Amino acid sequence: MTPSGPARDELAARLRLIVITDRDLARPREVTEVVGEALRAGAPAIQLREKTLPPRDTLPLARRLRADTRAAGALFFVNDRPDLALAVGADGVHLGPDDLPVAAARRIAPPPFLIGYSTDDPDAARAAVADGAHYIGCGAVFPTSTKSDAGRAVGLRGLARVVAAVDAPVVAIGGIDAARAPGVFRVGAGCAAVSAVMAAADPGRAVHSILRAAAEG
Amino acid sequence: MTPSGPARDELAARLRLIVITDRDLARPREVTEVVGEALRAGAPAIQLREKTLPPRDTLPLARRLRADTRAAGALFFVNDRPDLALAVGADGVHLGPDDLPVAAARRIAPPPFLIGYSTDDPDAARAAVADGAHYIGCGAVFPTSTKSDAGRAVGLRGLARVVAAVDAPVVAIGGIDAARAPGVFRVGAGCAAVSAVMAAADPGRAVHSILRAAAEG
Repeated sequence: MTPSGPARDELAARLRLIVITDRDLARPREVTEVVGEALRAGAPAIQLREKTLPPRDTLPLARRLRADTRAAGALFFVNDRPDLALAVGADGVHLGPDDLPVAAARRIAPPPFLIGYSTDDPDAARAAVADGAHYIGCGAVFPTSTKSDAGRAVGLRGLARVVAAVDAPVVAIGGIDAARAPGVFRVGAGCAAVSAVMAAADPGRAVHSILRAAAEG
Repeated sequence: MTPSGPARDELAARLRLIVITDRDLARPREVTEVVGEALRAGAPAIQLREKTLPPRDTLPLARRLRADTRAAGALFFVNDRPDLALAVGADGVHLGPDDLPVAAARRIAPPPFLIGYSTDDPDAARAAVADGAHYIGCGAVFPTSTKSDAGRAVGLRGLARVVAAVDAPVVAIGGIDAARAPGVFRVGAGCAAVSAVMAAADPGRAVHSILRAAAEG
């Protein structure tokens, strides 16, 4: 199920940075405004992560971000909900351990719909890829305050173990910013940024800094 | 989008009783045990309503209920989550005002997948049917303790207004038991039962009583 060769490499290139939304961190700005700045700065992928709004109210936001990412040529993922992702024509969904399992999501959402799965465990990563996951979100790599249930940080060493375990792209999450991005890229992973972009005074500049580290990696 | 003629009548006949699960009310029995007794008594439709378990843990229960309902020739619905419903091959999903809108669910789940929608408002019922809902869940018809957000009870008069508003089958919910079922059937609606079956000492007998009222209606 894993994309291989050029398709895998192209996906990995686009997953060198996923900007993940957070309405609280974006305040007083709207999420769409911060995402807009990130897209103009070249962010190649956006993930809508909305933990408090009910699905009915998340839908209009998801539609707007789908339109904006499409216009910018960026990938668009929705967190947790394959149905919401499919309803807005997202490129994929990002699933965690409590969500619908990868294999179940795969059954209702055939390729080219992409599935990401969160784990810091090499064996679980291998199993997820075997079940149809296209990429792994690994974290928390560094300590983070944006996800209270993220557990202890696994560090670049833990990240490297997951990268080594799977052929699919791995995206590091948890405390990622421009200063830590070079270490992440050296390990062969991409970066998922939440507060580094959503809470930034200049989100475009934050995106530029991380992408520059990727280009120099 | 509404089924009409024989298809509509067949659906209405099968929706004369939907047994809705509740793990707390079923205790100390398992939900599967209570549903099993309801199915053996001839319950023509089951809805899995699970508000606390994460999707990963709901999935095995949904799979089991799908298998049991299929074996019994009963319809199987999953509450709230079109993705979970599709993943287990359910006959349909039941959506409420906070869930993914009917039109969005319709896009990801084409017929014959069924969509129910909860409302006690005739105009909202018409709109839901126009968007692709196959039946309306109307309630609370009577005061109920199983749904804290159900608002005031609309009574048989309010139920009749929704029945009059749409050609699709309407299923009454909220405080429905064998004593109240005859009134519901006289208005032309079906019955959705939660505590009357899930908390019953003899769930099969509770199902029999409601189905007898339907047959006599």
